[in-house]
This record gives sequence, C-alpha cells and structure tokens, in this order.
Amino acid sequence: MNLFDDVPTNLPSELVNVLAEGQSVRIERIVSTGHTTEPGKWYDQEQDEWVLVLKGEAKLSFADGELVTMNPGDHLLIPAHRRHRVEWTSTKEPTIWLAVFSQSTSKS
Amino acid sequence: MNLFDDVPTNLPSELVNVLAEGQSVRIERIVSTGHTTEPGKWYDQEQDEWVLVLKGEAKLSFADGELVTMNPGDHLLIPAHRRHRVEWTSTKEPTIWLAVFSQSTSKS
Repeated sequence: MNLFDDVPTNLPSELVNVLAEGQSVRIERIVSTGHTTEPGKWYDQEQDEWVLVLKGEAKLSFADGELVTMNPGDHLLIPAHRRHRVEWTSTKEPTIWLAVFSQSTSKS
Repeated sequence: MNLFDDVPTNLPSELVNVLAEGQSVRIERIVSTGHTTEPGKWYDQEQDEWVLVLKGEAKLSFADGELVTMNPGDHLLIPAHRRHRVEWTSTKEPTIWLAVFSQSTSKS
C-alpha cells in the first residue's frame, strides 16, 4: 500500500491503518477529515508517540497549555502520559498522519 | 525541524538525522542525492527497518533477488538480516527517506 493511496475524503471517524507492528513498535497511518478529539477527552497513553503530518493540517493541544499547529513535514514526540488531544484538523483536505508508538523513547 | 527543510541538493554522502531515539526504536531522516550502497556491499542489520520514501525515487535490491522501486508514499519492512542495498537513487532531486529501526517487528 502506498501511504497516499486510498485516502477517503469523508469519514465517519478517523481511519487507522496499522502499517507494521512488533513487540516494541507500532506504525500507523491515520487519516482525519475534520475530526477532533471529543470535547473534554484527553489522550493519556502508556507509550511514547512520535507523530508526523504528511498532508493536510492539524492542531494538537496539551493539558499543560501548549497548542501546536502541524503542517506537512512537521513532527513531534509526545512522551507517554503527556495528555493531549486533537483540537482541529483541516476540512479542506484529508490530513494524513504517520504515528510511531513505542516504549521508552526519548528525544535525541 | 520540518522534515522537508534543510534538504541539501548535493552531498558527499547520505545525510542522516536522528529524529527520535529510545530503548526500542530509532527514527531517522535520510537524504540521498544519487547515493547508492558501495559495490559489493550488503546491509545485514540486527534490527528490523521500516522504510518510507517521502520525496524522490529509489531502488532497493535484496540478496534474495528482489528489486523494489520506491516512489513517494511507498513503504517497506526489511526484517533483520534480510540483506539489502540501495541500488539507485534519483539524481534529479533529493530522495528523502524516513526509517524506523526497531527490534522484533513483524508485518501486521
């Protein structure tokens, strides 16, 4: 599968495709078409998540107050238990994310 | 750093930037400008490598005879010890790779 193929433009919820998975890592393609995290909900994850926006645009917010706008090529490491939510994604075009979940990642 | 920033067009050798690193995973951006693996050399790695081409074009060959052409969005899991080499990369534009090295990954 090419990452840029089979990208729906209208989805009832985020589309997640697991691209590779092992004991220590899981790599996902996520497609958002205007989706956001439901109001009041924060992700609080056991694993580190490294996330990259490949197409579209998104805003992530963090419980510690930071708001990050992500355009294609922007990437970010979200350490385990740093509470975050998807505040906004583009409605003009699908937003394609690559997410790498792993244990004990620290920024180099 | 944005993945698409600071991409040199002429390099003496491949440029590797480590984007994130932890106990179980290492994420790299690799830029090739026509580079190939030196003649007769095969990579034989201890870790699994999941590789994605983001820009440019490349051909990977495998000691088992397979030759794979990769265009933007194409991705591939190279299991540990599957011997491979970069046979060709575009000379028209830089080829940008994303590589995720990890232990014990298996294709989902």
